[in-house]
Amino acid sequence: MSQSTQLAITGAAGQIGYQLAFRIASGQLLGYGQPLTLRLIEIAPAMKALRGVAMELADCAFESLREVITTERLEEGFRGAEYVFLVGAKPRGPGMERSDLLTENARIFSRQGQALNEQADDRAKVLVVGNPANTNALLAASNAPDMNPRNFSAMTRLDHNRACAQLAARTGHHARSVERMIIWGNHSATQYPDLSQALVDGRTATALVDEEWARGEFLTTVQQRGASVIQARGTSSAASAASAAIDHMRDWAHGTRDGDWVSMAVPSDGSYGAPEGVYFSYPVRCADGAWEIVQGLELDEFSRDKIRITGDELVAERSAASQLDL
Amino acid sequence: MSQSTQLAITGAAGQIGYQLAFRIASGQLLGYGQPLTLRLIEIAPAMKALRGVAMELADCAFESLREVITTERLEEGFRGAEYVFLVGAKPRGPGMERSDLLTENARIFSRQGQALNEQADDRAKVLVVGNPANTNALLAASNAPDMNPRNFSAMTRLDHNRACAQLAARTGHHARSVERMIIWGNHSATQYPDLSQALVDGRTATALVDEEWARGEFLTTVQQRGASVIQARGTSSAASAASAAIDHMRDWAHGTRDGDWVSMAVPSDGSYGAPEGVYFSYPVRCADGAWEIVQGLELDEFSRDKIRITGDELVAERSAASQLDL
Repeated sequence: MSQSTQLAITGAAGQIGYQLAFRIASGQLLGYGQPLTLRLIEIAPAMKALRGVAMELADCAFESLREVITTERLEEGFRGAEYVFLVGAKPRGPGMERSDLLTENARIFSRQGQALNEQADDRAKVLVVGNPANTNALLAASNAPDMNPRNFSAMTRLDHNRACAQLAARTGHHARSVERMIIWGNHSATQYPDLSQALVDGRTATALVDEEWARGEFLTTVQQRGASVIQARGTSSAASAASAAIDHMRDWAHGTRDGDWVSMAVPSDGSYGAPEGVYFSYPVRCADGAWEIVQGLELDEFSRDKIRITGDELVAERSAASQLDL
Repeated sequence: MSQSTQLAITGAAGQIGYQLAFRIASGQLLGYGQPLTLRLIEIAPAMKALRGVAMELADCAFESLREVITTERLEEGFRGAEYVFLVGAKPRGPGMERSDLLTENARIFSRQGQALNEQADDRAKVLVVGNPANTNALLAASNAPDMNPRNFSAMTRLDHNRACAQLAARTGHHARSVERMIIWGNHSATQYPDLSQALVDGRTATALVDEEWARGEFLTTVQQRGASVIQARGTSSAASAASAAIDHMRDWAHGTRDGDWVSMAVPSDGSYGAPEGVYFSYPVRCADGAWEIVQGLELDEFSRDKIRITGDELVAERSAASQLDL
């Protein structure tokens, strides 16, 4: 038996975690032959539910699953972890300001960064799903000085997949026939879903849809998709978020499709005029377990404006977080 | 593109359905290359949530998924269906007698049988998950005179997987190293999880565990596992039930492992002294899309007693259902 890969998930008893743990345990991230250990982390009030999740995982008799560890201690949860999904976050409660949300989560993700620095595998890939995801990723990475900041990322893949699905539906194609979609910036309402570089079944998307739709309905539909799902289901996107998390991690680890790219929020080097240092969603290509920002794309004024707006928001979030006494 | 396989799921916006739809759409039942259409069925009050599920399915950009149909009309939902998961059922509410439960569900599953008879593919494989699953399967099959009753089955695979996991944990092995487990009878508290034929890593299970455990704690742990999960999670088994449903259908369609068998509730031919005609869980081997009851196993007095008890319950359920004015 080859060695068991260690995967950690925070918020593992939550709605996204409940989808993610089973999809991973069933072999969908690493492949069916690869033994794996799930290290499931929750806060104290959810530990009982988490033990129920572990019971159900055992009851699936999954071939790949070797062990399930349930813990509220980050140190135990992150020990030796090679893939880390930071899903758990404090949600925005009634009467809570956005700044309160930032503060609460800044504390959580800073502590998680410290624990990862101490316990995780040196080359661990860390994906932040919990919101505000980009700034949470920044705080986690900043608190893990021995780890490469490039090993942290935040998820915009759900937005990316949603954008592909919208363009596919508009043009009468399958979502997988859409390539070179881009989500720029923050995983928030300021995100910029950009189809200006996209291909649909090999054809230029901008020749297939009109500019008014691309800059209007397409944009707002993708930006507000999460709210639309909540409105329909009565609860937020869980299965699609878990699916996007698997897509993100799998492509990061195993490489993006030839000729295509994906969107990931990664530490900005200032490419395309984005502010440096924040975790900014870019088009990236992955190979051999590493990502690189796709360079040399031509952007028009509309796109540069949108990138500036979402970049400004990320700078403001970073600034607010830096003033916190964590 | 090869033709899209048609799969129908009732109760598709419920907890099990929400897990099942995404696992199937991701390619885990039919294989990643096989295009598929999901036909998702719900009752009127859940149609809004179901449309949210369909939005999330689109947002996953799954390679295999060609189309998602959402409907409250059985006729539309079952049209051309080749794989049918009857998951939705009326749950037992406060103050409701077991007989009320039987009546409500007898109506639902009889109507579904009629609609399947009219609309589904002639060779459709129908799996009943909704409780009381065995008798629901009987009623659905009885109302589908043009379909072979052998194409209907009820799920005891979750119990089977749970039993494998318990025996594996007891003996320090992986659940997949357990073979020849049996769940006999009704998917209810009278079910008989039987390890007397089981092998663990090729060795006779009865030589590895003592009889007291096999007939005591093992039995009650498996029988009461559902309640234990509810106690921990605060809600019933969903991910593990969906996973078992995929296991059941996959093994039925693609065959059981060489030398092994699985548990499925199928129309009884009286084998092992079980009452004829009811849907009774047996050890079955599957090949070429068909199942056969494993014959020639030697059973002791203890096992024959347990089989009689669970068989009596199924006869009583059938008798109660036959007196209903549906």
